[in-house]
Amino acid sequence: MLDIQELSKKAVDWAKEAGKKSIELRKKQIKIKYKSSPSDLVTEVDQEIEKFLIGQILSSYSDHGIVGEEGFFKGDPKEYDTLWIIDPIDGTTNFVHQQVNYVISIAVVHKGEGLIGVVYDPTRDELFFAKKGEGATLNDRPIHLQTPVPLREGLICTSLFWNQRTEKLGLDHLVDELPRSCRGIRIYGCAALEMAYVAAGRVDAYISLSLNPWDFAASKIILEEAGGITSTIDGSTLTFEKANSVVASNPFLYKELMEFVARN
Amino acid sequence: MLDIQELSKKAVDWAKEAGKKSIELRKKQIKIKYKSSPSDLVTEVDQEIEKFLIGQILSSYSDHGIVGEEGFFKGDPKEYDTLWIIDPIDGTTNFVHQQVNYVISIAVVHKGEGLIGVVYDPTRDELFFAKKGEGATLNDRPIHLQTPVPLREGLICTSLFWNQRTEKLGLDHLVDELPRSCRGIRIYGCAALEMAYVAAGRVDAYISLSLNPWDFAASKIILEEAGGITSTIDGSTLTFEKANSVVASNPFLYKELMEFVARN
Repeated sequence: MLDIQELSKKAVDWAKEAGKKSIELRKKQIKIKYKSSPSDLVTEVDQEIEKFLIGQILSSYSDHGIVGEEGFFKGDPKEYDTLWIIDPIDGTTNFVHQQVNYVISIAVVHKGEGLIGVVYDPTRDELFFAKKGEGATLNDRPIHLQTPVPLREGLICTSLFWNQRTEKLGLDHLVDELPRSCRGIRIYGCAALEMAYVAAGRVDAYISLSLNPWDFAASKIILEEAGGITSTIDGSTLTFEKANSVVASNPFLYKELMEFVARN
Repeated sequence: MLDIQELSKKAVDWAKEAGKKSIELRKKQIKIKYKSSPSDLVTEVDQEIEKFLIGQILSSYSDHGIVGEEGFFKGDPKEYDTLWIIDPIDGTTNFVHQQVNYVISIAVVHKGEGLIGVVYDPTRDELFFAKKGEGATLNDRPIHLQTPVPLREGLICTSLFWNQRTEKLGLDHLVDELPRSCRGIRIYGCAALEMAYVAAGRVDAYISLSLNPWDFAASKIILEEAGGITSTIDGSTLTFEKANSVVASNPFLYKELMEFVARN
Protein backbone atom coordinates (compact mmCIF):
# COMPACT_ATOMS: atom_id res chain seq x y z
CA MET A 1 0.00 0.00 0.00
CA LEU A 2 1.51 3.34 -1.09
CA ASP A 3 1.77 6.10 1.50
CA ILE A 4 1.17 9.05 -0.84
CA GLN A 5 1.88 11.58 1.88
CA GLU A 6 5.30 10.12 2.53
CA LEU A 7 6.03 9.67 -1.18
CA SER A 8 5.20 13.35 -1.76
CA LYS A 9 7.41 14.56 1.04
CA LYS A 10 10.35 12.51 -0.17
CA ALA A 11 9.91 13.51 -3.82
CA VAL A 12 9.89 17.18 -2.80
CA ASP A 13 12.87 16.84 -0.44
CA TRP A 14 14.94 15.01 -3.04
CA ALA A 15 14.07 17.51 -5.79
CA LYS A 16 15.17 20.39 -3.54
CA GLU A 17 18.36 18.61 -2.52
CA ALA A 18 19.11 17.84 -6.19
CA GLY A 19 18.52 21.52 -6.97
CA LYS A 20 20.96 22.60 -4.29
CA LYS A 21 23.53 20.13 -5.65
CA SER A 22 23.07 21.48 -9.18
CA ILE A 23 23.94 25.01 -8.04
CA GLU A 24 27.00 23.84 -6.08
CA LEU A 25 28.26 21.56 -8.84
CA ARG A 26 27.76 24.25 -11.50
CA LYS A 27 30.32 26.45 -9.76
CA LYS A 28 33.03 23.91 -10.55
CA GLN A 29 34.53 23.34 -13.99
CA ILE A 30 32.22 20.76 -15.60
CA LYS A 31 32.74 18.37 -18.49
CA ILE A 32 30.18 18.70 -21.26
CA LYS A 33 29.56 15.98 -23.81
CA TYR A 34 27.46 15.92 -26.96
CA LYS A 35 24.89 13.17 -27.22
CA SER A 36 23.22 13.03 -30.65
CA SER A 37 24.13 16.55 -31.89
CA PRO A 38 25.64 19.93 -30.85
CA SER A 39 22.20 20.75 -29.42
CA ASP A 40 22.02 17.64 -27.28
CA LEU A 41 24.28 18.11 -24.28
CA VAL A 42 24.90 16.12 -21.14
CA THR A 43 27.13 17.02 -18.24
CA GLU A 44 28.60 15.19 -15.30
CA VAL A 45 26.05 17.05 -13.20
CA ASP A 46 23.09 15.44 -15.01
CA GLN A 47 24.68 12.08 -14.39
CA GLU A 48 25.65 12.73 -10.77
CA ILE A 49 22.18 14.01 -9.89
CA GLU A 50 20.46 11.07 -11.59
CA LYS A 51 22.64 8.69 -9.56
CA PHE A 52 21.81 10.63 -6.38
CA LEU A 53 18.07 10.41 -7.09
CA ILE A 54 18.22 6.71 -7.95
CA GLY A 55 20.12 6.04 -4.72
CA GLN A 56 17.53 7.91 -2.65
CA ILE A 57 14.56 6.25 -4.35
CA LEU A 58 15.91 2.71 -4.08
CA SER A 59 17.02 3.11 -0.49
CA SER A 60 13.40 3.94 0.46
CA TYR A 61 11.52 1.97 -2.20
CA SER A 62 13.52 -1.02 -3.37
CA ASP A 63 10.52 -2.43 -5.25
CA HIS A 64 9.94 0.69 -7.37
CA GLY A 65 11.18 1.12 -10.94
CA ILE A 66 12.88 4.22 -12.36
CA VAL A 67 12.91 5.76 -15.82
CA GLY A 68 15.55 8.47 -16.02
CA GLU A 69 16.95 10.54 -18.85
CA GLU A 70 20.49 9.32 -18.29
CA GLY A 71 19.43 5.67 -18.11
CA PHE A 72 21.41 4.51 -15.07
CA PHE A 73 18.57 2.34 -13.76
CA LYS A 74 18.59 -0.82 -15.79
CA GLY A 75 15.28 -2.52 -14.90
CA ASP A 76 12.43 -2.87 -17.43
CA PRO A 77 9.74 -0.29 -16.59
CA LYS A 78 7.01 -2.77 -17.52
CA GLU A 79 7.95 -4.94 -14.57
CA TYR A 80 7.11 -2.32 -11.92
CA ASP A 81 3.73 -1.21 -10.60
CA THR A 82 5.20 2.03 -9.30
CA LEU A 83 7.55 4.01 -11.50
CA TRP A 84 9.57 7.14 -10.83
CA ILE A 85 10.03 9.10 -14.05
CA ILE A 86 12.87 11.56 -13.51
CA ASP A 87 14.89 14.15 -15.35
CA PRO A 88 17.84 15.15 -13.15
CA ILE A 89 18.37 18.36 -15.19
CA ASP A 90 15.72 19.30 -17.73
CA GLY A 91 17.15 22.12 -19.81
CA THR A 92 20.79 20.98 -19.82
CA THR A 93 21.72 23.52 -22.50
CA ASN A 94 20.43 26.33 -20.26
CA PHE A 95 22.23 24.79 -17.29
CA VAL A 96 25.49 24.93 -19.26
CA HIS A 97 25.04 28.34 -20.95
CA GLN A 98 22.98 30.27 -18.46
CA GLN A 99 22.93 28.57 -15.07
CA VAL A 100 19.23 29.53 -14.99
CA ASN A 101 16.00 28.23 -16.57
CA TYR A 102 16.60 24.54 -15.86
CA VAL A 103 14.64 22.28 -13.49
CA ILE A 104 14.65 18.98 -11.65
CA SER A 105 11.60 16.95 -12.70
CA ILE A 106 10.22 14.01 -10.68
CA ALA A 107 6.98 12.10 -11.31
CA VAL A 108 5.59 9.10 -9.47
CA VAL A 109 3.28 6.95 -11.60
CA HIS A 110 1.35 3.92 -10.32
CA LYS A 111 -0.03 1.42 -12.84
CA GLY A 112 0.01 4.08 -15.54
CA GLU A 113 -1.67 6.74 -13.43
CA GLY A 114 0.17 9.90 -12.39
CA LEU A 115 0.23 10.25 -8.58
CA ILE A 116 2.79 12.96 -7.83
CA GLY A 117 4.47 15.65 -9.92
CA VAL A 118 7.37 17.80 -8.72
CA VAL A 119 9.15 20.39 -10.87
CA TYR A 120 11.77 22.40 -9.01
CA ASP A 121 13.48 25.49 -10.43
CA PRO A 122 16.46 25.92 -8.09
CA THR A 123 17.64 29.35 -9.25
CA ARG A 124 14.23 30.91 -8.59
CA ASP A 125 13.54 28.56 -5.67
CA GLU A 126 10.16 27.80 -7.23
CA LEU A 127 8.51 24.45 -6.57
CA PHE A 128 5.61 23.37 -8.77
CA PHE A 129 3.84 20.44 -7.13
CA ALA A 130 0.74 18.27 -7.48
CA LYS A 131 -0.74 15.23 -5.82
CA LYS A 132 -3.44 13.35 -7.77
CA GLY A 133 -6.90 14.64 -6.87
CA GLU A 134 -5.64 17.34 -4.50
CA GLY A 135 -4.80 20.18 -6.86
CA ALA A 136 -1.52 21.88 -7.75
CA THR A 137 0.63 24.43 -5.96
CA LEU A 138 3.49 26.83 -6.67
CA ASN A 139 5.56 27.25 -3.51
CA ASP A 140 2.58 25.96 -1.48
CA ARG A 141 0.10 28.47 -2.96
CA PRO A 142 -2.72 26.78 -4.92
CA ILE A 143 -2.63 27.35 -8.68
CA HIS A 144 -5.78 26.83 -10.71
CA LEU A 145 -6.52 27.95 -14.25
CA GLN A 146 -9.81 29.80 -14.21
CA THR A 147 -9.45 32.67 -16.69
CA PRO A 148 -10.55 32.23 -20.32
CA VAL A 149 -7.81 33.14 -22.82
CA PRO A 150 -8.51 33.52 -26.53
CA LEU A 151 -5.60 32.55 -28.80
CA ARG A 152 -5.02 36.17 -29.91
CA GLU A 153 -4.30 37.07 -26.27
CA GLY A 154 -2.33 33.92 -25.45
CA LEU A 155 1.38 33.45 -24.86
CA ILE A 156 2.54 30.20 -26.45
CA CYS A 157 5.71 28.22 -25.72
CA THR A 158 6.91 25.94 -28.46
CA SER A 159 9.95 24.20 -29.87
CA LEU A 160 8.33 23.86 -33.31
CA PHE A 161 10.66 26.41 -34.91
CA TRP A 162 13.70 24.25 -34.96
CA ASN A 163 12.16 20.85 -35.30
CA GLN A 164 13.39 19.39 -38.57
CA ARG A 165 10.21 17.35 -38.76
CA THR A 166 7.81 20.29 -39.20
CA GLU A 167 8.36 20.26 -42.96
CA LYS A 168 7.99 16.49 -43.26
CA LEU A 169 4.78 16.61 -41.23
CA GLY A 170 3.38 19.50 -43.29
CA LEU A 171 3.43 21.81 -40.30
CA ASP A 172 5.37 24.66 -41.99
CA HIS A 173 2.24 26.71 -42.26
CA LEU A 174 1.50 26.29 -38.55
CA VAL A 175 5.01 27.51 -37.74
CA ASP A 176 4.42 30.59 -39.90
CA GLU A 177 0.94 31.37 -38.64
CA LEU A 178 1.21 30.66 -34.91
CA PRO A 179 3.34 33.70 -34.01
CA ARG A 180 0.98 35.97 -35.97
CA SER A 181 -2.13 34.58 -34.30
CA CYS A 182 -1.24 34.87 -30.63
CA ARG A 183 0.02 37.62 -28.32
CA GLY A 184 3.52 36.26 -28.25
CA ILE A 185 5.82 33.26 -28.47
CA ARG A 186 8.12 32.40 -25.59
CA ILE A 187 10.94 29.87 -25.78
CA TYR A 188 12.74 28.93 -22.55
CA GLY A 189 14.31 25.72 -23.86
CA CYS A 190 13.13 23.63 -20.91
CA ALA A 191 9.96 21.61 -21.56
CA ALA A 192 9.19 20.73 -17.95
CA LEU A 193 9.50 24.40 -16.94
CA GLU A 194 7.41 25.57 -19.90
CA MET A 195 4.61 23.11 -19.08
CA ALA A 196 4.77 24.10 -15.40
CA TYR A 197 4.45 27.73 -16.53
CA VAL A 198 1.23 26.77 -18.33
CA ALA A 199 -0.02 25.35 -15.00
CA ALA A 200 0.89 28.61 -13.27
CA GLY A 201 -0.80 30.72 -15.97
CA ARG A 202 2.51 32.37 -16.95
CA VAL A 203 2.05 31.10 -20.48
CA ASP A 204 -1.13 29.70 -21.94
CA ALA A 205 0.00 26.69 -23.93
CA TYR A 206 3.04 24.63 -24.85
CA ILE A 207 3.47 22.65 -28.08
CA SER A 208 6.23 20.17 -28.92
CA LEU A 209 6.54 17.55 -31.64
CA SER A 210 8.64 15.19 -29.60
CA LEU A 211 9.21 14.85 -25.88
CA ASN A 212 10.37 11.96 -23.75
CA PRO A 213 8.35 10.86 -20.72
CA TRP A 214 10.93 12.35 -18.33
CA ASP A 215 10.41 15.75 -20.02
CA PHE A 216 6.65 15.84 -19.55
CA ALA A 217 5.61 13.35 -16.82
CA ALA A 218 5.78 15.56 -13.73
CA SER A 219 4.47 18.68 -15.47
CA LYS A 220 1.57 16.76 -17.02
CA ILE A 221 0.42 15.76 -13.52
CA ILE A 222 0.87 19.32 -12.23
CA LEU A 223 -0.88 20.93 -15.18
CA GLU A 224 -3.86 18.58 -15.05
CA GLU A 225 -4.26 19.14 -11.32
CA ALA A 226 -4.18 22.90 -12.04
CA GLY A 227 -7.15 22.36 -14.35
CA GLY A 228 -5.19 22.29 -17.61
CA ILE A 229 -5.35 19.82 -20.49
CA THR A 230 -2.64 17.71 -22.11
CA SER A 231 -2.77 15.55 -25.23
CA THR A 232 -0.67 14.60 -28.22
CA ILE A 233 -0.76 17.01 -31.15
CA ASP A 234 -3.48 14.94 -32.84
CA GLY A 235 -5.64 15.01 -29.71
CA SER A 236 -4.89 11.52 -28.38
CA THR A 237 -4.32 10.80 -24.70
CA LEU A 238 -0.75 11.50 -23.58
CA THR A 239 0.49 8.45 -21.68
CA PHE A 240 3.62 8.02 -19.60
CA GLU A 241 5.17 5.04 -21.34
CA LYS A 242 6.63 6.51 -24.50
CA ALA A 243 7.98 9.59 -26.30
CA ASN A 244 5.28 11.62 -28.02
CA SER A 245 4.18 14.99 -29.33
CA VAL A 246 2.72 17.16 -26.58
CA VAL A 247 0.10 19.89 -26.39
CA ALA A 248 -0.28 21.33 -22.87
CA SER A 249 -2.87 24.03 -22.53
CA ASN A 250 -5.00 26.32 -20.45
CA PRO A 251 -8.38 24.50 -20.48
CA PHE A 252 -10.23 27.45 -22.03
CA LEU A 253 -7.74 27.74 -24.89
CA TYR A 254 -7.37 24.05 -25.73
CA LYS A 255 -10.25 23.70 -28.21
CA GLU A 256 -9.38 26.86 -30.15
CA LEU A 257 -5.70 25.91 -30.20
CA MET A 258 -6.37 22.38 -31.49
CA GLU A 259 -8.68 23.73 -34.20
CA PHE A 260 -5.96 26.20 -35.15
CA VAL A 261 -3.38 23.40 -35.33
CA ALA A 262 -5.71 21.21 -37.44
CA ARG A 263 -6.43 24.11 -39.82
CA ASN A 264 -2.76 25.09 -40.35
CA MET B 1 30.49 68.90 -14.93
CA LEU B 2 28.87 65.48 -14.54
CA ASP B 3 29.70 63.48 -11.43
CA ILE B 4 29.60 60.01 -12.98
CA GLN B 5 30.04 58.28 -9.66
CA GLU B 6 27.00 60.01 -8.20
CA LEU B 7 24.96 59.54 -11.39
CA SER B 8 25.70 55.80 -11.28
CA LYS B 9 24.72 55.44 -7.67
CA LYS B 10 21.45 57.26 -8.22
CA ALA B 11 20.58 55.34 -11.39
CA VAL B 12 21.15 52.04 -9.57
CA ASP B 13 19.23 53.11 -6.46
CA TRP B 14 16.25 54.31 -8.51
CA ALA B 15 16.19 51.15 -10.66
CA LYS B 16 16.13 49.00 -7.53
CA GLU B 17 13.45 51.13 -5.92
CA ALA B 18 11.38 50.97 -9.13
CA GLY B 19 11.82 47.19 -9.14
CA LYS B 20 10.56 46.93 -5.56
CA LYS B 21 7.57 49.11 -6.47
CA SER B 22 6.78 46.88 -9.48
CA ILE B 23 6.56 43.81 -7.26
CA GLU B 24 4.35 45.57 -4.70
CA LEU B 25 2.07 47.12 -7.31
CA ARG B 26 1.73 43.83 -9.20
CA LYS B 27 0.07 42.27 -6.17
CA LYS B 28 -2.88 44.64 -6.56
CA GLN B 29 -5.50 44.40 -9.26
CA ILE B 30 -4.06 46.38 -12.17
CA LYS B 31 -5.69 47.99 -15.19
CA ILE B 32 -4.28 46.86 -18.51
CA LYS B 33 -4.74 48.83 -21.72
CA TYR B 34 -3.90 47.98 -25.31
CA LYS B 35 -1.74 50.45 -27.16
CA SER B 36 -1.40 49.63 -30.88
CA SER B 37 -2.52 45.97 -30.79
CA PRO B 38 -3.41 43.05 -28.47
CA SER B 39 0.35 42.41 -28.20
CA ASP B 40 1.14 45.97 -27.11
CA LEU B 41 0.12 46.38 -23.49
CA VAL B 42 0.55 49.11 -20.95
CA THR B 43 -0.44 49.09 -17.30
CA GLU B 44 -0.85 51.67 -14.59
CA VAL B 45 2.36 50.28 -13.16
CA ASP B 46 4.40 51.23 -16.24
CA GLN B 47 2.96 54.72 -15.96
CA GLU B 48 3.38 55.05 -12.21
CA ILE B 49 7.00 53.88 -12.33
CA GLU B 50 7.84 56.20 -15.21
CA LYS B 51 6.42 59.12 -13.20
CA PHE B 52 8.43 58.01 -10.15
CA LEU B 53 11.66 57.88 -12.18
CA ILE B 54 11.02 61.25 -13.84
CA GLY B 55 10.37 62.80 -10.43
CA GLN B 56 13.61 61.40 -9.03
CA ILE B 57 15.70 62.43 -12.03
CA LEU B 58 14.36 65.98 -12.21
CA SER B 59 14.65 66.57 -8.48
CA SER B 60 18.39 65.84 -8.72
CA TYR B 61 19.10 66.97 -12.29
CA SER B 62 16.67 69.65 -13.37
CA ASP B 63 18.72 70.42 -16.50
CA HIS B 64 18.66 66.83 -17.84
CA GLY B 65 16.24 65.56 -20.47
CA ILE B 66 14.31 62.29 -20.35
CA VAL B 67 13.11 59.91 -23.07
CA GLY B 68 10.69 57.38 -21.60
CA GLU B 69 8.49 54.71 -23.14
CA GLU B 70 5.33 56.21 -21.66
CA GLY B 71 6.22 59.73 -22.81
CA PHE B 72 5.39 61.70 -19.65
CA PHE B 73 8.40 63.99 -20.04
CA LYS B 74 7.50 66.53 -22.69
CA GLY B 75 10.82 68.25 -23.49
CA ASP B 76 12.53 67.81 -26.86
CA PRO B 77 15.49 65.41 -26.42
CA LYS B 78 17.56 67.44 -28.87
CA GLU B 79 17.64 70.34 -26.44
CA TYR B 80 19.50 68.47 -23.68
CA ASP B 81 23.18 67.57 -23.43
CA THR B 82 22.43 64.83 -20.90
CA LEU B 83 19.55 62.46 -21.55
CA TRP B 84 18.06 59.69 -19.42
CA ILE B 85 16.59 57.02 -21.66
CA ILE B 86 14.27 54.89 -19.54
CA ASP B 87 11.85 52.02 -19.82
CA PRO B 88 9.94 51.74 -16.53
CA ILE B 89 8.87 48.16 -17.37
CA ASP B 90 10.47 46.48 -20.36
CA GLY B 91 8.53 43.27 -21.01
CA THR B 92 5.10 44.56 -19.99
CA THR B 93 3.39 41.48 -21.44
CA ASN B 94 5.52 39.27 -19.17
CA PHE B 95 4.84 41.58 -16.24
CA VAL B 96 1.10 41.12 -16.82
CA HIS B 97 1.08 37.38 -17.64
CA GLN B 98 3.99 36.05 -15.65
CA GLN B 99 5.17 38.54 -13.06
CA VAL B 100 8.68 37.46 -14.06
CA ASN B 101 11.08 38.17 -16.95
CA TYR B 102 10.59 41.93 -17.04
CA VAL B 103 13.14 44.63 -16.18
CA ILE B 104 13.64 48.30 -15.35
CA SER B 105 16.01 49.84 -17.90
CA ILE B 106 17.85 53.14 -17.34
CA ALA B 107 20.55 54.67 -19.54
CA VAL B 108 22.37 57.97 -19.15
CA VAL B 109 23.65 59.41 -22.43
CA HIS B 110 25.75 62.57 -22.73
CA LYS B 111 26.01 64.29 -26.14
CA GLY B 112 25.12 61.02 -27.86
CA GLU B 113 27.61 58.91 -25.90
CA GLY B 114 26.41 56.19 -23.49
CA LEU B 115 27.75 56.84 -19.98
CA ILE B 116 25.77 54.53 -17.70
CA GLY B 117 23.59 51.48 -18.30
CA VAL B 118 21.40 49.85 -15.63
CA VAL B 119 19.11 46.87 -16.27
CA TYR B 120 17.43 45.52 -13.15
CA ASP B 121 15.48 42.24 -13.05
CA PRO B 122 13.57 42.55 -9.76
CA THR B 123 12.23 38.99 -9.52
CA ARG B 124 15.72 37.51 -9.74
CA ASP B 125 17.29 40.49 -7.96
CA GLU B 126 19.84 40.68 -10.77
CA LEU B 127 21.44 44.00 -11.61
CA PHE B 128 23.30 44.36 -14.89
CA PHE B 129 25.39 47.54 -14.81
CA ALA B 130 28.05 49.39 -16.77
CA LYS B 131 29.86 52.68 -16.60
CA LYS B 132 31.60 53.86 -19.79
CA GLY B 133 35.22 52.68 -19.89
CA GLU B 134 35.03 50.75 -16.62
CA GLY B 135 33.53 47.42 -17.70
CA ALA B 136 30.25 45.73 -16.92
CA THR B 137 29.01 43.82 -13.89
CA LEU B 138 26.21 41.46 -12.90
CA ASN B 139 25.45 41.95 -9.21
CA ASP B 140 28.89 43.57 -8.79
CA ARG B 141 30.79 40.65 -10.36
CA PRO B 142 32.61 41.67 -13.58
CA ILE B 143 31.22 40.16 -16.78
CA HIS B 144 33.41 40.01 -19.86
CA LEU B 145 32.87 37.97 -23.02
CA GLN B 146 36.06 36.06 -23.69
CA THR B 147 34.98 32.70 -25.07
CA PRO B 148 34.67 32.13 -28.82
CA VAL B 149 31.26 30.73 -29.85
CA PRO B 150 30.63 29.39 -33.35
CA LEU B 151 27.04 29.89 -34.60
CA ARG B 152 26.28 26.16 -34.46
CA GLU B 153 26.95 26.23 -30.69
CA GLY B 154 25.26 29.56 -30.07
CA LEU B 155 21.97 30.34 -28.32
CA ILE B 156 20.17 33.14 -30.16
CA CYS B 157 17.37 35.36 -28.87
CA THR B 158 15.17 36.92 -31.49
CA SER B 159 11.75 38.39 -32.12
CA LEU B 160 12.03 37.77 -35.88
CA PHE B 161 9.43 35.00 -35.82
CA TRP B 162 6.46 37.22 -35.34
CA ASN B 163 7.62 40.34 -37.06
CA GLN B 164 5.25 40.99 -39.93
CA ARG B 165 8.04 42.78 -41.74
CA THR B 166 10.25 39.73 -42.25
CA GLU B 167 8.41 38.85 -45.46
CA LYS B 168 8.47 42.39 -46.80
CA LEU B 169 12.17 42.63 -46.08
CA GLY B 170 12.90 39.27 -47.72
CA LEU B 171 14.01 37.77 -44.42
CA ASP B 172 11.74 34.68 -44.55
CA HIS B 173 14.67 32.48 -45.38
CA LEU B 174 16.65 33.79 -42.42
CA VAL B 175 13.72 32.98 -40.13
CA ASP B 176 13.65 29.42 -41.50
CA GLU B 177 17.38 28.83 -41.40
CA LEU B 178 18.43 30.47 -38.14
CA PRO B 179 16.92 27.86 -35.79
CA ARG B 180 18.53 25.07 -37.81
CA SER B 181 21.95 26.68 -37.79
CA CYS B 182 22.43 27.38 -34.10
CA ARG B 183 22.22 25.39 -30.88
CA GLY B 184 18.90 26.87 -29.90
CA ILE B 185 16.54 29.81 -30.03
CA ARG B 186 15.39 31.48 -26.83
CA ILE B 187 12.57 34.01 -26.64
CA TYR B 188 12.01 35.81 -23.33
CA GLY B 189 9.92 38.65 -24.75
CA CYS B 190 11.97 41.37 -23.05
CA ALA B 191 14.59 43.02 -25.28
CA ALA B 192 16.56 44.75 -22.52
CA LEU B 193 16.81 41.47 -20.59
CA GLU B 194 17.76 39.49 -23.69
CA MET B 195 20.54 41.95 -24.58
CA ALA B 196 21.75 41.93 -20.96
CA TYR B 197 21.83 38.12 -21.18
CA VAL B 198 24.14 38.45 -24.20
CA ALA B 199 26.42 40.61 -22.01
CA ALA B 200 26.36 37.93 -19.30
CA GLY B 201 27.05 35.13 -21.81
CA ARG B 202 23.70 33.44 -21.09
CA VAL B 203 22.81 33.76 -24.75
CA ASP B 204 25.20 34.59 -27.54
CA ALA B 205 23.26 37.05 -29.70
CA TYR B 206 20.01 38.94 -29.96
CA ILE B 207 18.35 40.06 -33.20
CA SER B 208 15.35 42.36 -33.59
CA LEU B 209 13.98 44.23 -36.58
CA SER B 210 12.61 47.10 -34.59
CA LEU B 211 13.41 48.41 -31.12
CA ASN B 212 12.94 51.80 -29.55
CA PRO B 213 15.86 53.54 -27.82
CA TRP B 214 14.37 52.81 -24.37
CA ASP B 215 14.44 49.08 -25.21
CA PHE B 216 18.12 48.94 -26.12
CA ALA B 217 19.92 51.99 -24.67
CA ALA B 218 20.97 50.65 -21.26
CA SER B 219 21.74 47.13 -22.52
CA LYS B 220 23.78 48.46 -25.43
CA ILE B 221 26.06 50.27 -22.96
CA ILE B 222 26.29 47.18 -20.73
CA LEU B 223 26.95 44.79 -23.61
CA GLU B 224 29.65 46.95 -25.16
CA GLU B 225 31.38 47.34 -21.79
CA ALA B 226 31.25 43.53 -21.47
CA GLY B 227 33.16 43.31 -24.74
CA GLY B 228 30.15 42.65 -26.97
CA ILE B 229 29.16 44.30 -30.24
CA THR B 230 25.95 46.06 -31.27
CA SER B 231 24.84 47.34 -34.66
CA THR B 232 21.77 47.61 -36.84
CA ILE B 233 20.92 44.52 -38.90
CA ASP B 234 22.76 45.97 -41.92
CA GLY B 235 25.89 46.58 -39.86
CA SER B 236 25.50 50.34 -39.28
CA THR B 237 26.24 51.99 -35.95
CA LEU B 238 23.36 51.78 -33.49
CA THR B 239 22.72 55.27 -32.10
CA PHE B 240 20.52 56.34 -29.23
CA GLU B 241 18.32 58.86 -31.01
CA LYS B 242 15.88 56.71 -32.93
CA ALA B 243 14.15 53.33 -33.28
CA ASN B 244 16.14 50.81 -35.27
CA SER B 245 16.86 47.17 -36.00
CA VAL B 246 19.32 45.71 -33.50
CA VAL B 247 21.96 43.00 -33.57
CA ALA B 248 23.65 42.47 -30.20
CA SER B 249 26.32 39.81 -30.13
CA ASN B 250 29.16 38.05 -28.45
CA PRO B 251 32.21 39.65 -30.14
CA PHE B 252 33.53 36.33 -31.44
CA LEU B 253 30.20 35.42 -33.05
CA TYR B 254 29.38 38.79 -34.62
CA LYS B 255 31.17 38.36 -37.95
CA GLU B 256 29.80 34.84 -38.58
CA LEU B 257 26.31 35.94 -37.56
CA MET B 258 26.31 38.99 -39.85
CA GLU B 259 27.58 36.89 -42.77
CA PHE B 260 24.80 34.38 -42.04
CA VAL B 261 22.20 37.16 -41.98
CA ALA B 262 23.51 38.63 -45.26
CA ARG B 263 23.48 35.19 -46.92
CA ASN B 264 19.92 34.27 -45.84
